[in-house]
Amino acid sequence: MPSPTFAITRRVEFHETDAAGIMHFSNFYRWMEVCEHEWFRSLNLPMMSTTSAGIRLGWPRRDASCSFLRPLRCGDHVRITGSIAALGDTSVSYEFIFHKDRAGKWTEVANGRMSTVHVRQDATGRMEAEAIPPEVRAALGPSA
Amino acid sequence: MPSPTFAITRRVEFHETDAAGIMHFSNFYRWMEVCEHEWFRSLNLPMMSTTSAGIRLGWPRRDASCSFLRPLRCGDHVRITGSIAALGDTSVSYEFIFHKDRAGKWTEVANGRMSTVHVRQDATGRMEAEAIPPEVRAALGPSA
Amino acid sequence: MPSPTFAITRRVEFHETDAAGIMHFSNFYRWMEVCEHEWFRSLNLPMMSTTSAGIRLGWPRRDASCSFLRPLRCGDHVRITGSIAALGDTSVSYEFIFHKDRAGKWTEVANGRMSTVHVRQDATGRMEAEAIPPEVRAALGPSA
Amino acid sequence: MPSPTFAITRRVEFHETDAAGIMHFSNFYRWMEVCEHEWFRSLNLPMMSTTSAGIRLGWPRRDASCSFLRPLRCGDHVRITGSIAALGDTSVSYEFIFHKDRAGKWTEVANGRMSTVHVRQDATGRMEAEAIPPEVRAALGPSA
Repeated sequence: MPSPTFAITRRVEFHETDAAGIMHFSNFYRWMEVCEHEWFRSLNLPMMSTTSAGIRLGWPRRDASCSFLRPLRCGDHVRITGSIAALGDTSVSYEFIFHKDRAGKWTEVANGRMSTVHVRQDATGRMEAEAIPPEVRAALGPSA
Repeated sequence: MPSPTFAITRRVEFHETDAAGIMHFSNFYRWMEVCEHEWFRSLNLPMMSTTSAGIRLGWPRRDASCSFLRPLRCGDHVRITGSIAALGDTSVSYEFIFHKDRAGKWTEVANGRMSTVHVRQDATGRMEAEAIPPEVRAALGPSA
Repeated sequence: MPSPTFAITRRVEFHETDAAGIMHFSNFYRWMEVCEHEWFRSLNLPMMSTTSAGIRLGWPRRDASCSFLRPLRCGDHVRITGSIAALGDTSVSYEFIFHKDRAGKWTEVANGRMSTVHVRQDATGRMEAEAIPPEVRAALGPSA
Repeated sequence: MPSPTFAITRRVEFHETDAAGIMHFSNFYRWMEVCEHEWFRSLNLPMMSTTSAGIRLGWPRRDASCSFLRPLRCGDHVRITGSIAALGDTSVSYEFIFHKDRAGKWTEVANGRMSTVHVRQDATGRMEAEAIPPEVRAALGPSA
């Protein structure tokens, strides 16, 4: 029962680099989120929605970590592969691996983890954990 | 009847630099906005608010331009001075000058312009220009 | 003798939005640069290089402006089309139009202009304007 | 022998927020780095330098993690306090706590950890771990 995975590719853009000549490390966290959002988009699942009763549903981040093995430079072609590390009642933990294209060979440059919580937010902004919808659970859970 | 001005200072942070070793030009536009926001804060005026009828008031940008004279590097101490170029019925045009501290001497490194529109936004997201509130006009208009 | 044009498409990513619920205006300037870089990449021309004598060649920005007509939201599909407004001895002025995909119809949301200077930089960091290389002039100039 | 600590304060700026109305989580990592850089600046220690032999010394990040307890909103006044979790031969591990000013009471909103490696980089870009300089060790080590 392997977990589903999802991958995107992108190039390091100039505004993502820093004066050390490499991609600034904060962008790895942004790329994890881009991978998560594209994954949901591919499944036709919303990241944010508002119910008819005005309750806002969303997925705020609970924690995120990343280890940096090799630097990325402007123009580098990178593949980000997400997988599901854990699927709780109200939370999802993702793992991500970053590979760089080195002359046709994908070399790992970083790996990270991010966990998110499904929440409902009322009009006052108060957030409360909310059970993961069945269609999300079906899409992200281990395949039979 | 000189127009009021407002200034902030800040240092170039590492994540704002790029692989050319200088501050990425997109940050000059962010700094204009930071100056504008701090100006409003110093006057105790909100940048965004919601009326009791649920109408959201705000100041979206209409256009912004900037000319770059000298590069900024990580750690550079910079002063951003805003002034009012024009105050319309529903819009404000600001001018900004950026100076770098070079051994105690402030040297111009860039200058820009940004215009904003005061808008009301209904629940559907539709925006409509709205007269500038009198207290904003009083604060940003030429002093008597 | 029409000028060449070049277009890219991309989606508004969540980290590019702000608390007003729309893409932060500073990202339009970044997207102009991404379009410029992809244009050069498509022509196999470098944006930065170092000569055998250690001289660094590059294209710092001289000025950039943008007018914002309609807001962009997270997930919006956007096309950025660049064209050449002027080609000087040492500088290039680009024009950019941003269109949003509204149910299959491309609607203009913003337009901007950016000018860059071709420079050489010695080991001390001093920059000096440098004639545009013939291969760049050939690629960006009006087609015969 | 308590470890030294260092704190900075800053406000959440509008461009740091996202469409969920809160500070985008990627900025917490940037703020850890700003705290680290200001700490070094306060000690008059460089973050990057080049030896007379052309060797570049720096502190690339090895990993960074952060847990998010409460959201931050535009204008929130935040204190970031860094401390030393571990001081190795060639690496430093920092811990950071983020507190928000809630009507004069500092409330924890996030906590993180970042480890960096002291490296030397030759002209080809190859990086190698390098012993932490004695003046850095003296400044960041436990006080007697």
